[in-house]
Amino acid sequence: MASLRGMTQRHDGRAPDETREVRITRNWLDHAEGSVLVEFGRTRVLCAASFTEGVPRWLKGKGAGWVTAEYAMLPRATNTRSDRESVKGRIGGRTHEISRLIGRSLRAVIDTKALGENTIVLDCDVLQADGGTRTAAITGAYVALVDAIEDARSRGLIGRNAKPLTGSVAAVSVGVVGGQPVLDLDYPEDSTAETDMNVVMTGDGRFVEVQGTAESEPFDRTLLDALLDLATRGCADLTTMQQAALADEVVA
Amino acid sequence: MASLRGMTQRHDGRAPDETREVRITRNWLDHAEGSVLVEFGRTRVLCAASFTEGVPRWLKGKGAGWVTAEYAMLPRATNTRSDRESVKGRIGGRTHEISRLIGRSLRAVIDTKALGENTIVLDCDVLQADGGTRTAAITGAYVALVDAIEDARSRGLIGRNAKPLTGSVAAVSVGVVGGQPVLDLDYPEDSTAETDMNVVMTGDGRFVEVQGTAESEPFDRTLLDALLDLATRGCADLTTMQQAALADEVVA
Amino acid sequence: MASLRGMTQRHDGRAPDETREVRITRNWLDHAEGSVLVEFGRTRVLCAASFTEGVPRWLKGKGAGWVTAEYAMLPRATNTRSDRESVKGRIGGRTHEISRLIGRSLRAVIDTKALGENTIVLDCDVLQADGGTRTAAITGAYVALVDAIEDARSRGLIGRNAKPLTGSVAAVSVGVVGGQPVLDLDYPEDSTAETDMNVVMTGDGRFVEVQGTAESEPFDRTLLDALLDLATRGCADLTTMQQAALADEVVA
Amino acid sequence: MASLRGMTQRHDGRAPDETREVRITRNWLDHAEGSVLVEFGRTRVLCAASFTEGVPRWLKGKGAGWVTAEYAMLPRATNTRSDRESVKGRIGGRTHEISRLIGRSLRAVIDTKALGENTIVLDCDVLQADGGTRTAAITGAYVALVDAIEDARSRGLIGRNAKPLTGSVAAVSVGVVGGQPVLDLDYPEDSTAETDMNVVMTGDGRFVEVQGTAESEPFDRTLLDALLDLATRGCADLTTMQQAALADEVVA
Amino acid sequence: MASLRGMTQRHDGRAPDETREVRITRNWLDHAEGSVLVEFGRTRVLCAASFTEGVPRWLKGKGAGWVTAEYAMLPRATNTRSDRESVKGRIGGRTHEISRLIGRSLRAVIDTKALGENTIVLDCDVLQADGGTRTAAITGAYVALVDAIEDARSRGLIGRNAKPLTGSVAAVSVGVVGGQPVLDLDYPEDSTAETDMNVVMTGDGRFVEVQGTAESEPFDRTLLDALLDLATRGCADLTTMQQAALADEVVA
Amino acid sequence: MASLRGMTQRHDGRAPDETREVRITRNWLDHAEGSVLVEFGRTRVLCAASFTEGVPRWLKGKGAGWVTAEYAMLPRATNTRSDRESVKGRIGGRTHEISRLIGRSLRAVIDTKALGENTIVLDCDVLQADGGTRTAAITGAYVALVDAIEDARSRGLIGRNAKPLTGSVAAVSVGVVGGQPVLDLDYPEDSTAETDMNVVMTGDGRFVEVQGTAESEPFDRTLLDALLDLATRGCADLTTMQQAALADEVVA
Repeated sequence: MASLRGMTQRHDGRAPDETREVRITRNWLDHAEGSVLVEFGRTRVLCAASFTEGVPRWLKGKGAGWVTAEYAMLPRATNTRSDRESVKGRIGGRTHEISRLIGRSLRAVIDTKALGENTIVLDCDVLQADGGTRTAAITGAYVALVDAIEDARSRGLIGRNAKPLTGSVAAVSVGVVGGQPVLDLDYPEDSTAETDMNVVMTGDGRFVEVQGTAESEPFDRTLLDALLDLATRGCADLTTMQQAALADEVVA
Repeated sequence: MASLRGMTQRHDGRAPDETREVRITRNWLDHAEGSVLVEFGRTRVLCAASFTEGVPRWLKGKGAGWVTAEYAMLPRATNTRSDRESVKGRIGGRTHEISRLIGRSLRAVIDTKALGENTIVLDCDVLQADGGTRTAAITGAYVALVDAIEDARSRGLIGRNAKPLTGSVAAVSVGVVGGQPVLDLDYPEDSTAETDMNVVMTGDGRFVEVQGTAESEPFDRTLLDALLDLATRGCADLTTMQQAALADEVVA
Repeated sequence: MASLRGMTQRHDGRAPDETREVRITRNWLDHAEGSVLVEFGRTRVLCAASFTEGVPRWLKGKGAGWVTAEYAMLPRATNTRSDRESVKGRIGGRTHEISRLIGRSLRAVIDTKALGENTIVLDCDVLQADGGTRTAAITGAYVALVDAIEDARSRGLIGRNAKPLTGSVAAVSVGVVGGQPVLDLDYPEDSTAETDMNVVMTGDGRFVEVQGTAESEPFDRTLLDALLDLATRGCADLTTMQQAALADEVVA
Repeated sequence: MASLRGMTQRHDGRAPDETREVRITRNWLDHAEGSVLVEFGRTRVLCAASFTEGVPRWLKGKGAGWVTAEYAMLPRATNTRSDRESVKGRIGGRTHEISRLIGRSLRAVIDTKALGENTIVLDCDVLQADGGTRTAAITGAYVALVDAIEDARSRGLIGRNAKPLTGSVAAVSVGVVGGQPVLDLDYPEDSTAETDMNVVMTGDGRFVEVQGTAESEPFDRTLLDALLDLATRGCADLTTMQQAALADEVVA
Repeated sequence: MASLRGMTQRHDGRAPDETREVRITRNWLDHAEGSVLVEFGRTRVLCAASFTEGVPRWLKGKGAGWVTAEYAMLPRATNTRSDRESVKGRIGGRTHEISRLIGRSLRAVIDTKALGENTIVLDCDVLQADGGTRTAAITGAYVALVDAIEDARSRGLIGRNAKPLTGSVAAVSVGVVGGQPVLDLDYPEDSTAETDMNVVMTGDGRFVEVQGTAESEPFDRTLLDALLDLATRGCADLTTMQQAALADEVVA
Repeated sequence: MASLRGMTQRHDGRAPDETREVRITRNWLDHAEGSVLVEFGRTRVLCAASFTEGVPRWLKGKGAGWVTAEYAMLPRATNTRSDRESVKGRIGGRTHEISRLIGRSLRAVIDTKALGENTIVLDCDVLQADGGTRTAAITGAYVALVDAIEDARSRGLIGRNAKPLTGSVAAVSVGVVGGQPVLDLDYPEDSTAETDMNVVMTGDGRFVEVQGTAESEPFDRTLLDALLDLATRGCADLTTMQQAALADEVVA
């Protein structure tokens, strides 16, 4: 990756393999079992983990729990106001797609048997959007998920030695901007990228999701490999930040 | 009012005629023309004012502008998670009712002719709820509205000397808890109140909205008068805080 | 109030503190447990009370009943036809708000424990609208409610000595038209009123709901007091008419 | 038909070829251009005709008008309360089907060119249902339609000599109850009928719609012929009543 | 009927009492318990019968089964693309009406008691439309229904000697085109027909449904009789074709 | 790839790098500008391309065209019947996601400027599902798209020398089943796969979309590389089949 550092600077001065400033604020809410305000630069997502006993009907009696997610954006998260999906009366395709992605990503590190018949819903509400909202959401939601599980453990809802988490998960976007592969695109970069890829990885460096899309020009295998390298590095950095955030003693 | 100060303390130590700690943080968002994070104790509402040129179809060509509001609550704003209205596919009656109240309250201090054919939408999203979300929303939205108007003026979208604002507006709840009239109820008080009233007033002490509801027992005229006195005092205090917030020099 | 009688006549010749001609026709429908066609001048609302055994799921097993209301307007109740909410696929904010108001108003005089685990739904359908539809609905629905309760008692569904009703309830609008406070506004008055207030009161003169809105100009405390006086008188008159209607022997 | 008179009496004492008592009350509403409260025994339908200048987009500029209908039932029109379609958020198949039938039936006697680019909407709201609501609706709506057209003519919206109506239309149900063909079924008959047929005919005795359904047993041609005879007689009777109602001088 | 053969040829060369070429392909799908691709000329409808144990809630415990149908059209079944009803979020009146017609038609030959507490859903999806889609759907769905019942019998879900089918059912359209009664209208005929009638009959020549509509001019009894004669003949022909299709040995 | 041929046979006897039998039937519909019935084994998708002049409002006046897609599944395409999305009143997340994927994939080989202000909608309706419906849809839709463009050219709606297509596109699924990477999974394989990836590629071997998901276990880079190799080979095979289908002279 070192070679990338020598290339053209990005519009905000970052190196190609550098994420934006990431801030993870735990316990941002008083009511939720776990909550995180995660910021990737100006992108700001509020992740609330709600732990409830019991599971959806289709899972009842199987001794396993459930983790799911709902993603949404406030109307004025973006540069121009968009209509509320509640007012339109239907959820858009993009919202559905991202909600499903976040849910799958978190379930990849969950042992639902160890969770017992309990449900955790992760609400990821974008307060401000500047590119990378889904990857910020996954990265922040993981931390909220950890806190919700520990909260449930402290209340005796999960066994003292149960290990519902089998690992950690983080996500980052990579893309090709002006011909150059870059990490963690902000909105100005995202809107001009030739290729855009979101990668979700576990803390031990394996892939959970790879979603690459050629925005203007189809990409070849060499470029795909370069993007995967970059994402691997970015997820490793984010994993470190998640661990640091979780290491802090937090007073609710 | 002084006599009230001698009465039984409230569960959080406040005097009967005392509001919770109020914080008004301007420019909490980067994109919106005006934005305020308003906090009444643990109640936290994000108010974003979006200014757009043009008006809804039914107003076109009349030389007047429009101000409207949309209120919503994040799923985990409350103690237990509630379903998203976007997922349910319809907006609930309470949401509609409060959105309409906020819109009417702000329009009470707007000269739509002076606004020109422009529209301002106030999005009031409750990030955390602990009672009084609609009154906090009105109080905060007024400040965001002022900022959006000044932003539009600075961009030449409103005339240099136009005065779209004819006054200021603030709102507070009052109620009877344990037989005693109190100001600015938090959730534990609100859920046990015998009577609940929301009062919206202008900065010069006149009424814009009075909405009183007997929750358990109908109330008589004497009690109604006491509640109106209390609300008058509370709105005056909030007006002072709005002015203080607006007096600050804010760097976007 | 006598002083008001000397003031300028209203457009239809009424004194400022005079309601329109009120007609309460019981048993207008053959199927409903209670039904009333209530008319406030040209405003005509059909109130049907449906009594069913059992309660909504969230109330089950608590030994208490439920009273709720649904308000709606026929498309051609108004001067120009409006679209059906069933065709639009969603209920408007105004409809929701009024339905909730009617339900709360009736519950204010219901002892749900004495009602037993039974539900009464009040359907208030506006056949013709000329101002004051919500207040006519509440006033008529109370009478239909009484009839439905007596019908249930006669069928043994409510105990012989049970007293589910703790009082009576009636409602009236008041407002400021041409600078003068007036009672029971019709549509021409309502559409030009500076201030509009709906007041719901019990038969013993206490307040259940007070909903005042400054339509053009915020109002001061003196005016608010005058309006409350006027409403108190109007509700007392309506209470008398309700009692007269209920005193009639009716053959179903 | 005479032979039918000797057969077993119906549960309400009617002869097999006898309609229920039919009442047609014109101008039941103050606002609508035409309005009729039509009663077939206890079935009570309010038909309001709304005349508006202009046509739906797909008809614009063709020099022709449009007539359409919307049918609905109040929740407590029936013996047990049914949920509102506005609350359910969608219109049921039965409602759609009947609305379309009424619209087609009325258009069968309309010369849309002579109507000019104007639209008439017939709202048929069932206030009380006791069988035959759709046939009552068509029969009443025709009268309301005549009144709306004359009202438009009097206001100069339709030419003095224009003849938008090419005839009259009425409708009746026929069916087989207890093996016997009968006319104008009420609810107790309708719910036990082996065959049910709705027939819409012009005043000059021609068919506009024939909709027959075998409820329990398929029917043969002989029976079909008997039902068509009965319907022909019933529609002729209803045509006479429509003419009588329209002959009355009505003061709006 | 022979006399009709001498009349003016139809646009596609058919005699007035001749159906289009009818093809009934059984087992067109691998998963469904019964499935038929039915073609009436260029009209092509895929009928899938799904057999499931159990009945809807309102039928539970009554020892009877249920048969229902859902009709739909692919967006590009027609000459110009129409919007999907799933995208519009609501089912149109025509779709509802035809689904209900198909369901009623099939239930006319079902003994629900003999079916046991089982449900059969007939999905009739129009892949290509050229007039007569509802009559093709009924004709094809009957064959799929037979196959689904035999499949259930072979799996022991229906008794060896149970006879859920009390007869067969087929449907055809008739109409008046250019003044001449004709059988099985294709789209060019249907769109110019003066009168249009759909007739559903049992294999033994009795009527299940008769739905006739005057498209331009009301029709008299003589014409109605001629159309019923024509439909009787057409349904008899279709019954023969259904029997032939069912006589084939089919390898799933 | 050769090495894979020596491995354990798949449940249907295919080699790991072998697709199912693929059939591409052009002009399956009479009305559509382009239409293909594409089959990947038992998976059967009907792709209809509708060409219309004009573009959506947001594209007007920019001199560019639009290509979009809608994916749906018939209720009985699957082993057990699923509810219609039109009946549920909302489109599911999976449907939205796949529709968007197909649209993006086709636009990757479209020069919208060369298309002119025209719109092509690709309706991909799954008649029968046995795994790989989205990849079959993309592969078939491309062929229908080509036909629709040539049809438009023949009617003079696209210039004689315009080249709206910049290449071809095909898609295939790959996954890990029983520890072994395999190509073009059918439903039994798909439902037990540890990893599932859909890959969309151009005819010249570049990537348009890569969507990989760890179903049970996160996957490492080596496995990801093996899957990408397999997909590359599969798309090349499908490209050849598309070319062969397009080379046939087809009589509409």
